[in-house]
Amino acid sequence: MNRAHNAPPLSLNTVTVKEKWGLAQCIEGCARQGIPGISPWRDVLHAMGVEAAARHIRDAGLVVTGLCRGGMFPAADAAGRAAAIEDNRRAIAEAAALGAQCLVMVCGGLPPGSKDLPGARAMVREGLEAILPEARAAGVTLALEPLHPMTCADRSVLSTLGQALDLCDALGEGVGVAVDVYHVWWDPELAAQMARAQGRIAAFHACDWLVPTTDLVFDRGMPGDGVIDIAALRRMAEAAGYAGFTEVELLSRRWWGEDPEDVLRIIRERHAATH
Amino acid sequence: MNRAHNAPPLSLNTVTVKEKWGLAQCIEGCARQGIPGISPWRDVLHAMGVEAAARHIRDAGLVVTGLCRGGMFPAADAAGRAAAIEDNRRAIAEAAALGAQCLVMVCGGLPPGSKDLPGARAMVREGLEAILPEARAAGVTLALEPLHPMTCADRSVLSTLGQALDLCDALGEGVGVAVDVYHVWWDPELAAQMARAQGRIAAFHACDWLVPTTDLVFDRGMPGDGVIDIAALRRMAEAAGYAGFTEVELLSRRWWGEDPEDVLRIIRERHAATH
Repeated sequence: MNRAHNAPPLSLNTVTVKEKWGLAQCIEGCARQGIPGISPWRDVLHAMGVEAAARHIRDAGLVVTGLCRGGMFPAADAAGRAAAIEDNRRAIAEAAALGAQCLVMVCGGLPPGSKDLPGARAMVREGLEAILPEARAAGVTLALEPLHPMTCADRSVLSTLGQALDLCDALGEGVGVAVDVYHVWWDPELAAQMARAQGRIAAFHACDWLVPTTDLVFDRGMPGDGVIDIAALRRMAEAAGYAGFTEVELLSRRWWGEDPEDVLRIIRERHAATH
Repeated sequence: MNRAHNAPPLSLNTVTVKEKWGLAQCIEGCARQGIPGISPWRDVLHAMGVEAAARHIRDAGLVVTGLCRGGMFPAADAAGRAAAIEDNRRAIAEAAALGAQCLVMVCGGLPPGSKDLPGARAMVREGLEAILPEARAAGVTLALEPLHPMTCADRSVLSTLGQALDLCDALGEGVGVAVDVYHVWWDPELAAQMARAQGRIAAFHACDWLVPTTDLVFDRGMPGDGVIDIAALRRMAEAAGYAGFTEVELLSRRWWGEDPEDVLRIIRERHAATH
């Protein structure tokens, strides 16, 4: 069943070509390739300058589907946690300056040396509570992104969509979820939690799970090269009221080695074929 | 808080030293080191012969805490699924011959080329239903082992303790769960599901999650070298009525390279220190 004719709008996450292109090249590449959305990481944003980037993106007619990333709240001491909160405040201001549809939150792993998972989860909640007033005032949606459980120790103690929605329930207005198929496809509760997410999906990210997967972070697959039924997950998101972009975010040593122009072209083709 | 004086009984899973020791050496090593339990994989069991192994283990006074492993039900066609069920029937007979406390079930991943995760999960359930009469007749408990979500594509579509307990509820008598801390430690539902597991924990496995983890299968850590609060998880299991062995199961290229005698000694020390 080919529904390429009505595939949702596509967005490029800049990490996908980070080894060869800065933000200006990503903006120009999206414009050339007819990709209408972009989602920058903060490192390339800072390298270009926030004001210049906002102007350049606006001039190219692109939608900023998200800013990557806030979060990383847990830290070994109070000073570390306060520094993380300060950095999140800057990220909120940057997301507002870009008119980003959300600030993607990668919440952070265990503090170094810690085995206290409930404690780290409490730090995440406290961090979110601390920055939520600024986010609301700036009109920036915090998109809580559950990350695959294999990242729990060092990147995200927020591991499932259900857990993210529990946090949304607790935090209230201004908080949603970012659903990345790579992180949630395995979850036996996924269909139920996607239905529960009604109206709260702020971003939808796609890539694929390769068999075998040879690295816990940098071996994501191009959509269509793995085992994730991306179209089925997109349908779940749409049934939950999401009508926005599909953002392709690849962290992949293999694809980082290719010509970015080819990567964008292949993403366009695969996006049409997997939706 | 050192509770080494009342650490639970220890069992050695033979895969931990599989590169250098066969089953006879494992049995003798456990006896020498004062490790009272053993859990063989079927490859080393077949190499020794089931009857010889059963006799040798009995003579050494060891408890067989499990046989690894049954499962692997999903297959691309009916013939493949029937072959899996036949193999599981042989595994049940072997577990009975050994007097094993359970047959550990690693349920299997997606069939090759498939993206149909609900379909694979249905195959697992159908496979379990097919072999359950033999298991009950033989008095062999099927211990459903949820495996880490990073193994969902190629090893186990059974990913969480909650999902395993749902299967237990559906299947009834003769089915329990194997809780391996490596596979479940990240789960935000863990405490609730461990409480729900009351009376149904058939095995408790320990190793550790290393930071960083460099391989999705063969980089498990020695207890104490990682971030898992093993003692806390053991307490949850005990609160759910489990009073059995802690079985140490390491799949680790690093530890496979060491002298097995040293590995067993270190496991004994770490077992005492992490319980």
